[in-house]
Amino acid sequence: MGISLAAEIAKYGVLSTSDHTSVASICLFATLLCACIVIGHLLEENRWVNESITALLIGLLTGFIILLTTQWKSSHILVFSEDLFFIYLLPPIIFNAGFQVKKKQFFRNFMTIMLFGAVGTLISFSIISLGAITLLGKINIGLTDIGDYLALGAIFSATDSVCTLQVLNQDETPLLYSLVFGEGVVNDATSVVLFNAIQHFDLVNIDFTIILHFAANFLYLFFTSTVLGVGTGLLSAFVIKNLYFGRHSTDREVSLMMLMAYLSYLLAELFYLSGILTVFFCGIVMSHYTWHNVTESSRITTKHTFAALSFIAEIFIFLYVGMDALDIEKWRFIRDSPGKSVAISSIILGTVMVGRAAFVFPLSFLSNLSKKYDHEKISFNQQITIWWAGLMRGAVSMALAYNQFTTSGHTDIHENAVMITSTITVVLFSTVVFGLLTKPLISYLVPPQQGLKHMSSLCSDSVSPKSFLAALLGNNGHEGEETHGVPQPTSLRMLVTSPTRTVHYYWRKFDDAIMRPMFGGRGFVPFVPGSPTEEPSVHPF
Amino acid sequence: MGISLAAEIAKYGVLSTSDHTSVASICLFATLLCACIVIGHLLEENRWVNESITALLIGLLTGFIILLTTQWKSSHILVFSEDLFFIYLLPPIIFNAGFQVKKKQFFRNFMTIMLFGAVGTLISFSIISLGAITLLGKINIGLTDIGDYLALGAIFSATDSVCTLQVLNQDETPLLYSLVFGEGVVNDATSVVLFNAIQHFDLVNIDFTIILHFAANFLYLFFTSTVLGVGTGLLSAFVIKNLYFGRHSTDREVSLMMLMAYLSYLLAELFYLSGILTVFFCGIVMSHYTWHNVTESSRITTKHTFAALSFIAEIFIFLYVGMDALDIEKWRFIRDSPGKSVAISSIILGTVMVGRAAFVFPLSFLSNLSKKYDHEKISFNQQITIWWAGLMRGAVSMALAYNQFTTSGHTDIHENAVMITSTITVVLFSTVVFGLLTKPLISYLVPPQQGLKHMSSLCSDSVSPKSFLAALLGNNGHEGEETHGVPQPTSLRMLVTSPTRTVHYYWRKFDDAIMRPMFGGRGFVPFVPGSPTEEPSVHPF
Repeated sequence: MGISLAAEIAKYGVLSTSDHTSVASICLFATLLCACIVIGHLLEENRWVNESITALLIGLLTGFIILLTTQWKSSHILVFSEDLFFIYLLPPIIFNAGFQVKKKQFFRNFMTIMLFGAVGTLISFSIISLGAITLLGKINIGLTDIGDYLALGAIFSATDSVCTLQVLNQDETPLLYSLVFGEGVVNDATSVVLFNAIQHFDLVNIDFTIILHFAANFLYLFFTSTVLGVGTGLLSAFVIKNLYFGRHSTDREVSLMMLMAYLSYLLAELFYLSGILTVFFCGIVMSHYTWHNVTESSRITTKHTFAALSFIAEIFIFLYVGMDALDIEKWRFIRDSPGKSVAISSIILGTVMVGRAAFVFPLSFLSNLSKKYDHEKISFNQQITIWWAGLMRGAVSMALAYNQFTTSGHTDIHENAVMITSTITVVLFSTVVFGLLTKPLISYLVPPQQGLKHMSSLCSDSVSPKSFLAALLGNNGHEGEETHGVPQPTSLRMLVTSPTRTVHYYWRKFDDAIMRPMFGGRGFVPFVPGSPTEEPSVHPF
Repeated sequence: MGISLAAEIAKYGVLSTSDHTSVASICLFATLLCACIVIGHLLEENRWVNESITALLIGLLTGFIILLTTQWKSSHILVFSEDLFFIYLLPPIIFNAGFQVKKKQFFRNFMTIMLFGAVGTLISFSIISLGAITLLGKINIGLTDIGDYLALGAIFSATDSVCTLQVLNQDETPLLYSLVFGEGVVNDATSVVLFNAIQHFDLVNIDFTIILHFAANFLYLFFTSTVLGVGTGLLSAFVIKNLYFGRHSTDREVSLMMLMAYLSYLLAELFYLSGILTVFFCGIVMSHYTWHNVTESSRITTKHTFAALSFIAEIFIFLYVGMDALDIEKWRFIRDSPGKSVAISSIILGTVMVGRAAFVFPLSFLSNLSKKYDHEKISFNQQITIWWAGLMRGAVSMALAYNQFTTSGHTDIHENAVMITSTITVVLFSTVVFGLLTKPLISYLVPPQQGLKHMSSLCSDSVSPKSFLAALLGNNGHEGEETHGVPQPTSLRMLVTSPTRTVHYYWRKFDDAIMRPMFGGRGFVPFVPGSPTEEPSVHPF
């Protein structure tokens, strides 16, 4: 949907032959995406490789072939574009994550997630920035502005939530998944806020007012983005429930859900909020209310369509990063000093690892202090996994680096080119090497429980009908909650002993009494006159 | 998916604020699309208005409001872009049409459809061109090139298959639907070929060789496009069947089907073929083979996703045409001579009506000669309906007109601006006025059979589970075919008396013996190890 943008694009199409190369490059991409899907399917049982790494390697290979065929002149079949990434590829991924996330797990660990995502990212940012100033300052890399060093901190404190989603399994390691992924979402928002702050605030005369201003800015952004996402989600639920959409057409329901999800992201961007947070919460609300108000067919359709779109976008990003990495023009600049480039990349990787360790272990300790039961605490092995799973850097880092180190569309300045190539090196290395080691590491450190393992082997596909049913029961199964052994003491005592649970208890009461009668949801599906309604509990799909 | 294109687009996104208007315009469009869907739903029972007209009117209204707010300076929130239309909006619509078309009806009337689509479009083209040369020549409109007049013929012989889809009902009037829609698809291809021929052939020294060359060109295009579409469809069926995709993930199946469908269109464009024909036949093959090889969930998902995407694209086009129509710059040129503009539009509309009448009635007569049974013949009322339903002109005409009458992105030349505004007038008038009258006209001329009417009132939604089941049985129910009273005579006699049926009979034998065992299809669903397979015949959805 390029709209007014599309008009600026050079004309081609069926009729004119002017920009035939554009069709060719879209064509190439579609073919490569198909190849990645088929290869990913064939490698499914492999314990080392996952789809991201396949896509990244295929991207690198294709870039190399293009380089060869153009005789080392250019692999410029495409240039990394922030728009493409932020406007078209990221929203479906994050929305789907919100739509499919196990809400109970997410909200139960909400405080820990916020601690990791906001405070942790700040710690990580400080350490990477300090490390960059100290260590990179010793090598003469040509960066003079303090803002550039701080930007490096923001760029490399953005973890790759896309890669995390592929590496961890929601069914096998629910706690880890919700912590690492939830952290990733909040982390995205935090690093973008940090990055914006660095670009707009006066960094030379830093004082308490600026820090306060910055904190207020973050809280404002977090709050308004969430409200916007929740609001859009509730609006979609309200409209679909009260106008009986299912009566006439399932297509309208599906279309409306897609459009409103995308609209929430666009609105956030329009008001300079965090689209990532907005669309994530919109996904959560839509799966809690809207999804239950639509017909059976629409439920299956939306569930799988969102997953498939997100899947395509993920592969696309890795393919894209892989192909872009071989852009010869950027590498030309560092030809004279390869050693320096390796040094910079290693320093950055080192600070990233130290920066992440510096918050995962202390904050896990803090979080464990507030938990009463052992099974709720984050074990040391789990802490190592959290630390490791967040080391990968991906497309968000790339996009931020391009934004900071590109002057009017070019990376011609020597020091900028060096920073871009270093970013690419870090992204490639962390995704491929750390990514390859993650699956074996997790299965070594955190062996999944037998029962869960059995279930997940029954439905190795996370959206197969069986796990779909399981997700249904797991996500919204309020009835099943009592089995976790929470007694029903007086509310004041509850609030002291387990605040999160108490909040959850009152939320459920509020949800059942006010929200669900108004916005629909499980058990509050409206009667659709004239449509072939089925008992949702009998035919869950 | 803009890829290399996207790089050329002015930068915006979360971080920079440079091109915030682009986000705003995408946002506006998403909002309007939602509004159209909700209003279309509310007006569902209205017998006059349909979704296209709603979208067109909302588009006009929005354009008007923008004009007002910018103080009559510009409604330039977007410019009609051929790329957007041909690369992103048209493929899902045509693919979905092929995917959901009742194949038996389509192939039974194949000869009539080809007659209408190819020969009919040529007749229509000749009459409109002649009419333009004779009548428009009398008014001094400034067109001197014979090519411009012939281009007008090609532009206005392209019917609007999108609008047809919304007006006719596949369940109520299956014969009419397959004739008018099938004609529309072939017509699209023919008029694009004609248009290309006019732009590239030497039209001054026209002789028999050129006509022969032209005919060969058309046949080549038709044949290769069909082969490409069928080939891509079969490849997807083969891959999904033989690699047991359903074993691991339904998302991969859905993604692969989407990508390969789009790939077929892109490949056709890449090789300068007719993408419309290719993607249409790809849709037919995918629904006949691939669709049966995937899991239950994937079947429901693809069915509804393709329908929803097509639905969104359709509304988008009408909204777009409506908003673009009020672009003040184009209308400025005709301010001094409004009478002339009205005259041109009326002449074009007149020739369009005559041109269509000139082939619908004679060709229906010809087609009726070859039919033995009365119920197979096209009645006079049906002929009038076919004539009427094809009078609407839509986005294809707009796109072709912009291509012909736009010089380097501008419509500044007076005569070009006049032709563009005339095209807009014809498109708006035919869509709104003819469109509004079509529903009542059809229900007056061709009252649907009682049984069918009853069925369709049960499932007014054309993709509700019930009609989905009906479509399944109707589409692929080879068993039910014998009830139409075809005896099994010797093959030679059959070939003489009813050639289409004979072809169908041998096709079925070939399909059952060779194609379906290789590519899957109903009754040949592969056993998927480890997946929850259900009996497809018991649970058709």
